[in-house]
Amino acid sequence: MKQQQLILHERPNGLPDDNTFQFKEVAVGEPKENQLLLKTLYVSVDPYMRGRMSDGPSYIEPFQVGAPLNGGIVSQVVESRSESFEKGDIVTGQLDFQAYHVVEPKQVRKVDTSGLSPSTALGPLGMPGLTAYFGMMHIGEPKEGETVVISGAAGAVGQVAGQLAKQAGAHVIGIVGSKEKADYITKTLGFEGAVEYKQGNVYKQLKAACPNGIDVYFENVGGEISDAVWPLLNTFARVPVCGAISSYNLKAGEKDIGIRVQQYLIKARAKLQGFLVADYASHYKEAYQVLGNGISKGAIKYEETIHEGFHAIPDAFLGLFSGQNIGKQLIKVADAE
Amino acid sequence: MKQQQLILHERPNGLPDDNTFQFKEVAVGEPKENQLLLKTLYVSVDPYMRGRMSDGPSYIEPFQVGAPLNGGIVSQVVESRSESFEKGDIVTGQLDFQAYHVVEPKQVRKVDTSGLSPSTALGPLGMPGLTAYFGMMHIGEPKEGETVVISGAAGAVGQVAGQLAKQAGAHVIGIVGSKEKADYITKTLGFEGAVEYKQGNVYKQLKAACPNGIDVYFENVGGEISDAVWPLLNTFARVPVCGAISSYNLKAGEKDIGIRVQQYLIKARAKLQGFLVADYASHYKEAYQVLGNGISKGAIKYEETIHEGFHAIPDAFLGLFSGQNIGKQLIKVADAE
Repeated sequence: MKQQQLILHERPNGLPDDNTFQFKEVAVGEPKENQLLLKTLYVSVDPYMRGRMSDGPSYIEPFQVGAPLNGGIVSQVVESRSESFEKGDIVTGQLDFQAYHVVEPKQVRKVDTSGLSPSTALGPLGMPGLTAYFGMMHIGEPKEGETVVISGAAGAVGQVAGQLAKQAGAHVIGIVGSKEKADYITKTLGFEGAVEYKQGNVYKQLKAACPNGIDVYFENVGGEISDAVWPLLNTFARVPVCGAISSYNLKAGEKDIGIRVQQYLIKARAKLQGFLVADYASHYKEAYQVLGNGISKGAIKYEETIHEGFHAIPDAFLGLFSGQNIGKQLIKVADAE
Repeated sequence: MKQQQLILHERPNGLPDDNTFQFKEVAVGEPKENQLLLKTLYVSVDPYMRGRMSDGPSYIEPFQVGAPLNGGIVSQVVESRSESFEKGDIVTGQLDFQAYHVVEPKQVRKVDTSGLSPSTALGPLGMPGLTAYFGMMHIGEPKEGETVVISGAAGAVGQVAGQLAKQAGAHVIGIVGSKEKADYITKTLGFEGAVEYKQGNVYKQLKAACPNGIDVYFENVGGEISDAVWPLLNTFARVPVCGAISSYNLKAGEKDIGIRVQQYLIKARAKLQGFLVADYASHYKEAYQVLGNGISKGAIKYEETIHEGFHAIPDAFLGLFSGQNIGKQLIKVADAE
């Protein structure tokens, strides 16, 4: 049996394009003793993958040219030769981008779907949810009555981060790129306000939306949007630095130039801190509990943007950089049986 | 009796100049019951005072035009009408820049000179020493074998910060502006290396001096020097942000533009944190003990640059921005009796 695989064809210089990706037909493997055969249901595309397409130093090894891309995937076990899994089980793992996988049991974990779509294991109950949790609760530490600003607020991480801050009693303002997203975060998620950055003068808009200044800024985007945040930081403000998507597609030699932040950090005695979910592995249980409870009680709502079919992966990925998605961007590859 | 006072004549736009300062002759007051008459021995000038000459929002109120500047002063009691002080006592406090003061006892604290110059109360045993201590030990937290880089390394704060890192077993590299300063920090203070930023390509020099990357960067200067530090930050690096002297003399409308730091913080999961000595008031005792012990045992050495005479204050202050001083910049106004 043959299947599709998605290959890194050429490292992009700037925004990825048609030359970046290549589809390849490869054989589906046969599971040996103690292995599983998985069928891919959902593929996750995430902004951090752009960093792996370049070969500079980073916290994660770069993708190899000519080798498959990989990322978060939800699959169904179609054949189990392991005692730990049964045919039909839903699992998730960090896997190559292809329609089927032969894996060892330790490469995946079972997803407890209990009423929720298995896709949530790639969103609010997966890496984006954990990212929101650790950034907001372990670095941001919002307190009752504080003002929390979130950039990329309608994205997979931002939507959860803002609701966690609301649970802590904070006044939450989201920065978003469209009226539709502004409506989503204020009307569906209940954020107190939205700033649409494409309407211009983010500083003025933020100042109006945050009359008491900003105590926590959850940083997803970087660039000019964040430049506008620094002067509004309150004393002892905390800034979990989760992402800087605006800088991910710089061309070779281009630099991410803007307002230097030091003077604002001194004035506010504020903290900027980069983080990575994997650094909090010993706290995963706590995070899954809070997120799971929140979602099952409806206190944490979420949105997904789902493209259909394996061939939709490149477009779905590129859409992240034009803000096409609301909530988690996924590709649905097959139905569960 | 008349005395000299130093007034803020005009707010500077950019680097302060002759119009910024004005000397004024005022009467020396008479101490009432429970007051002291003090004679100024040493005046401290510090880079942060530049911020107070502008009227933007900050952690400290701006100086008022037409009113005296103020800052750290060491004085001697020439007349005491308080039971807590005797004539001849050496005291320090945050006082107006003038040759004599009438104060309440609570405005000053006694300096225990025990063998040291009373001027140390404005340097390693004063605000700069405390700044070095809290930035390095409470935020930087250097560990045995780590690499610590200090900008402004031969300044009042940098010289102490580096020696505290050495005591913790770190490999310490200082960034300085002259060969003389490089010699001071390596030969007198025992830092493992010096980078002279005026020799160009700070990034290359730093990379050569720090083959294992940078675990702690004590930030005193900002600007291009710090831009060169960010790519070298190691995983979980800590950056106490003490000052950004390169940006203090921007003209109205000028912005401090450079490399945005977010991408480096994410890659390294690093922390940038602004701080202020006053936030650590509950730890002053611990800090004075460590600094006092270090100095009395000769484990913490220090340098002072002393200008003579009250009228030398403006020049001494401006010299901070051209890197004129080694160690603490002081003005000696009078001898103790």
